[in-house]
Amino acid sequence: MKPLNKDEITEFLALHLNGWSFDGNFIKRDFEFKNFVEAFSFMTAVALEAEKKDHHPDWNNEYNKVQIKLRTHSADGVTGKDIDLAQNIDSLYKSSGKG
Amino acid sequence: MKPLNKDEITEFLALHLNGWSFDGNFIKRDFEFKNFVEAFSFMTAVALEAEKKDHHPDWNNEYNKVQIKLRTHSADGVTGKDIDLAQNIDSLYKSSGKG
Repeated sequence: MKPLNKDEITEFLALHLNGWSFDGNFIKRDFEFKNFVEAFSFMTAVALEAEKKDHHPDWNNEYNKVQIKLRTHSADGVTGKDIDLAQNIDSLYKSSGKG
Repeated sequence: MKPLNKDEITEFLALHLNGWSFDGNFIKRDFEFKNFVEAFSFMTAVALEAEKKDHHPDWNNEYNKVQIKLRTHSADGVTGKDIDLAQNIDSLYKSSGKG
């Protein structure tokens, strides 16, 4: 899978992935919840989706905060697989009542 | 709860918490698993324990790798609560068949 170039990524984020940014390596977004239980419940939903797609995030959690970073390691860049997973993650965030 | 001093922390880690290190702010340990499912299953067990104790890790995950960092934010240091949770985490790692 071919990596997207910087212009393609930033244009797509601006149009379709509100809240995501590109740091040159990863597309990433910060999510915030009421507490740890809500944050980890969201992570569990994302984990199931990631495993189903066999495409996994680099992420961290601190109490009610979750940061998710996506890139396609095998392609050494951001690809359509990341865009696709980011859109799923946003849907899960919306259905958590937060997004 | 009073923070432990550096000597107390490093002595305790050397004696009782093999694999953990102190970086001046956090005690931390890296864990490795066969794949994402095993890594996230371990995280779920740790999440339940953390919520039960109302003491939560700062942690990150990348596919089969989990890094856990512990400190007591309210005490601005490492306390007995972190030592206690670290011991629970090691038990969970052992019972996952990895530790």
